Amino acid sequence: MSQAILLTPGPLTTSARTKEAMLSDWGSWDVSFNQLTASVCNDIVQIVKGQATHVCVPMQGSGTFAVEAALGSLVPHTGKVLVPSNGAYCQRIARILSYQKKDVVVLEHAEDEPASPDRILAALIADPGITHVAMVHCETSAGILNPLHDIALVVAAQKRHLIVDAMSSFAAIPIDLTTTPIDALIAASGKCLEGVPGMGFVIARQDVLESAKSNSHSLALDLHDQWIYMQKTGQWRYTPPTHVVAALRSALDQFHEEGGLSARNARYQKNCAALVSGMRTLGLRTYLADDVQAPIIVTFHSPDHPNFQFSKLYEGVKAQGFILYPGKLTQIETFRVGCIGAIDAKDIFKATEATARTLRDLGVI
Amino acid sequence: MSQAILLTPGPLTTSARTKEAMLSDWGSWDVSFNQLTASVCNDIVQIVKGQATHVCVPMQGSGTFAVEAALGSLVPHTGKVLVPSNGAYCQRIARILSYQKKDVVVLEHAEDEPASPDRILAALIADPGITHVAMVHCETSAGILNPLHDIALVVAAQKRHLIVDAMSSFAAIPIDLTTTPIDALIAASGKCLEGVPGMGFVIARQDVLESAKSNSHSLALDLHDQWIYMQKTGQWRYTPPTHVVAALRSALDQFHEEGGLSARNARYQKNCAALVSGMRTLGLRTYLADDVQAPIIVTFHSPDHPNFQFSKLYEGVKAQGFILYPGKLTQIETFRVGCIGAIDAKDIFKATEATARTLRDLGVI
Repeated sequence: MSQAILLTPGPLTTSARTKEAMLSDWGSWDVSFNQLTASVCNDIVQIVKGQATHVCVPMQGSGTFAVEAALGSLVPHTGKVLVPSNGAYCQRIARILSYQKKDVVVLEHAEDEPASPDRILAALIADPGITHVAMVHCETSAGILNPLHDIALVVAAQKRHLIVDAMSSFAAIPIDLTTTPIDALIAASGKCLEGVPGMGFVIARQDVLESAKSNSHSLALDLHDQWIYMQKTGQWRYTPPTHVVAALRSALDQFHEEGGLSARNARYQKNCAALVSGMRTLGLRTYLADDVQAPIIVTFHSPDHPNFQFSKLYEGVKAQGFILYPGKLTQIETFRVGCIGAIDAKDIFKATEATARTLRDLGVI
Repeated sequence: MSQAILLTPGPLTTSARTKEAMLSDWGSWDVSFNQLTASVCNDIVQIVKGQATHVCVPMQGSGTFAVEAALGSLVPHTGKVLVPSNGAYCQRIARILSYQKKDVVVLEHAEDEPASPDRILAALIADPGITHVAMVHCETSAGILNPLHDIALVVAAQKRHLIVDAMSSFAAIPIDLTTTPIDALIAASGKCLEGVPGMGFVIARQDVLESAKSNSHSLALDLHDQWIYMQKTGQWRYTPPTHVVAALRSALDQFHEEGGLSARNARYQKNCAALVSGMRTLGLRTYLADDVQAPIIVTFHSPDHPNFQFSKLYEGVKAQGFILYPGKLTQIETFRVGCIGAIDAKDIFKATEATARTLRDLGVI
């Protein structure tokens, strides 16, 4: 199992070199480790061209911890947040805010429908009390890409703040902070940067972060406090996941060597195309229309056949060295296959072959 | 630097085998990974003999995240917490509670004085409104061991709840939950279990955890929600630090092979004795009296010599392959040396030799 290829949207398959970067121990107080952290943060900001306006604050834990840190630290208690929702990660934003006892307005969309800039505009005009919009860039529940740039322009024109969960899009789908106005962009080590899981990060406008003192509901997740301390000392406030940071440094080196975001995007696009065409050959149908499908993770309808059970497909494909992902939609039976990680179209082709063999063994095709 | 021996209280030096356990990727949804998590949690509960009464809930992030999760989830909003304080980690507990807007009473002690069961008893009798006591077992600010068993008996006799930060003592200093009444005991992967940093855990009485629904101020740090989800699915709610968990599994295997807690305690005692005697030979003085010194980390007075600077000692010793730790006391100049990690008395002896060479080079001795 442990050498299987993960077709999951993080944790994902990382390169041997990334994992080997974890074979040293690092003192969290030592200047060498401080330099490691600083170089990781610098690179991350540059990937989205934020170096003139934004800073990167890393946060221990999973990506959700960084999302909660951003919402808790950057939305004041008097804030009111509009959440355009088309999946579980949008709903999670609303749930985080409700823990923080902040006003939330959820703008529901269908799970196969991108968040609508027009509907967001109408909602902002209708309710001047809304101070922030919090959205998900690529909603991995279905794999849909939301129109970040268009939404950001609407939010900025209405003089509201925008917080973006870019967990599964960061480093794979272009985001340019010089032309797309965003207060805070959140992602994590173990997604399209192809590091291992264990830390998230928030790329925040420096002026917004400066005014965020005493907002946070949580000490551990206080982004402002983390940033101030790191500026002063070069260190994380509390024990950092040192090996995860070292792996991320290596993963960033490999990201640059591959050719940066455009090369990574191209590889994932090829993976996605190979996956969709291979699965369609088997008679499987994608849930999303091609024009709203992000090249991150693809949702397939479960075959309408009495012999089909996802658990059997999962086990059959796993026995051939690939790990699939269950569906996360509320109404219909689906399963998902990720396109991301240190894999290429040849791996995807083999995964579709493994799927074909399993479906044949089950008598589904 | 990266192959240096860390004489720091976590991150610490881990074995090659522990680090090599991170050379595989794991699907966080896969049954193999669920089994890994369950086996780690089972082992952790057994180390403190809690299996009849307590459950282990892992939490992403550093140990502080797990401390905050326990305080946020197990102390209700109407709670009032007594914090016997003799160092920075005790103060951090009070700070976490103040973020949560909970009533805190800090019972100050000197930094070289163990928390006093008698003073805690008097405080509990004087204020029947106090519902909880939250304490640190080994306060690594100075390295002092607080009398956990005696305090636990006082707290239980007064029918209050006890929450213990056992971050740097867990798996090295005996704790027996069958005879020492504790509601929740908190530690982390990267301390005396000798794993890598990236996750904490809370060993909580099951009945206390069951009644903790809706207490938490934070979604990510909601211990009850994490536990319920894990019971239902075997999975972590949000992306787990898979490689850190795999390393901890390996570290636990090595803990058992070494002979469990008594063997680990004996090795750390030897490390500590070698350190103290070696440093005393150089004329260095320990800050704590020997009878309250935990075998975890030792605080030394900085030599009273015009040539002494900690940064120069640090660099000189680092150049010889050892990483020291700065002091954390408020009033006097000190530095610290850890006794824990995958090291033995021979390593400690070499570190004292490196210290001697550096102090001689500086003209301090």
